[in-house]
Amino acid sequence: MALSARNHLEGTVTDVETGQVMAEVVIELGDGQEVTSTITRNSFERLDIEPGDEVAAVIKASEVMVSNN
Amino acid sequence: MALSARNHLEGTVTDVETGQVMAEVVIELGDGQEVTSTITRNSFERLDIEPGDEVAAVIKASEVMVSNN
Amino acid sequence: MALSARNHLEGTVTDVETGQVMAEVVIELGDGQEVTSTITRNSFERLDIEPGDEVAAVIKASEVMVSNN
Amino acid sequence: MALSARNHLEGTVTDVETGQVMAEVVIELGDGQEVTSTITRNSFERLDIEPGDEVAAVIKASEVMVSNN
Amino acid sequence: MALSARNHLEGTVTDVETGQVMAEVVIELGDGQEVTSTITRNSFERLDIEPGDEVAAVIKASEVMVSNN
Amino acid sequence: MALSARNHLEGTVTDVETGQVMAEVVIELGDGQEVTSTITRNSFERLDIEPGDEVAAVIKASEVMVSNN
Repeated sequence: MALSARNHLEGTVTDVETGQVMAEVVIELGDGQEVTSTITRNSFERLDIEPGDEVAAVIKASEVMVSNN
Repeated sequence: MALSARNHLEGTVTDVETGQVMAEVVIELGDGQEVTSTITRNSFERLDIEPGDEVAAVIKASEVMVSNN
Repeated sequence: MALSARNHLEGTVTDVETGQVMAEVVIELGDGQEVTSTITRNSFERLDIEPGDEVAAVIKASEVMVSNN
Repeated sequence: MALSARNHLEGTVTDVETGQVMAEVVIELGDGQEVTSTITRNSFERLDIEPGDEVAAVIKASEVMVSNN
Repeated sequence: MALSARNHLEGTVTDVETGQVMAEVVIELGDGQEVTSTITRNSFERLDIEPGDEVAAVIKASEVMVSNN
Repeated sequence: MALSARNHLEGTVTDVETGQVMAEVVIELGDGQEVTSTITRNSFERLDIEPGDEVAAVIKASEVMVSNN
């Protein structure tokens, strides 16, 4: 299976937090930068992930802004 | 100024491509992974960026999916 | 690989249109309803899809609105 | 009123779940496929929907990815 | 018809620009602030809008970030 | 710092509501129209905002739909 989303950033789960409907997952990339994701709690439970797991942050290119420092 | 968007991934512009309305910007992170962004051509011209520039990819947490390898 | 995005709608590509940076893909579902997607032209070419192909429209739950008829 | 969002998928609400700020709504399409939506709890209450109601899932084309099976 | 999207900002179209696949629409609100939208060219043509028309910018709450000046 | 996101709508926070993972912020613009935003509770706490504060609603152009009244 190939997905059109251009961005697959591989990293390690470092933190998870769950509410009734939503969950927050923090992923650390290879260079130490962090990516935070909010997904539904149902998706979170279906993925069955926990800190230490290797995952990818997947992001559609249209959702990425650019900041000029 | 502080922005609610949780994800600011610093990197270097490696490629840009422009159409009539949209532009595509490729950013390489510190660990060699790439992030692709599509923004309007007007935003692209206002930011005045080109390959080699240090920028950040800014992404709202709600736009980040998680993939369980 | 499992992706957190909850929505995978299977269908058949019925139309494609390409610009310099973006491409539009129309997918017909099993009940005749259509889903339109805009992705980058680069993603479109990498997926190598054309009318008649079986694909899935993948959508993060946070992007879906509800309309009460 | 006409909305630019290209995708209006008609279906029936099959499940709802509410948290303090967010709500999750599951909609079954005519061909049996399901679409999950997360909206604010306030929007959910304003729409006044419950399982069995006929609604539409509305999605902007830029939010739809394509997966090549 | 009621839509879950919380934000309907009424204004006047002040500028439009079209590419092959995408179109950009600029809307001026009552207090002089501007909202820029990118939609597909097909949606733009279906809406049949031009400068001077009264429209609304519709935005899902999950897409709005907050900046603390 | 300049951000590619085209839309920075200045206003005043009029209401906030927090859940375990998400928070909802309501911003009133100069012409009395309201913008609702959902961000993570962590972002909300980091921004340290409360009713009466001057903030901006920041929105990527690709997330804005147009409605033809």
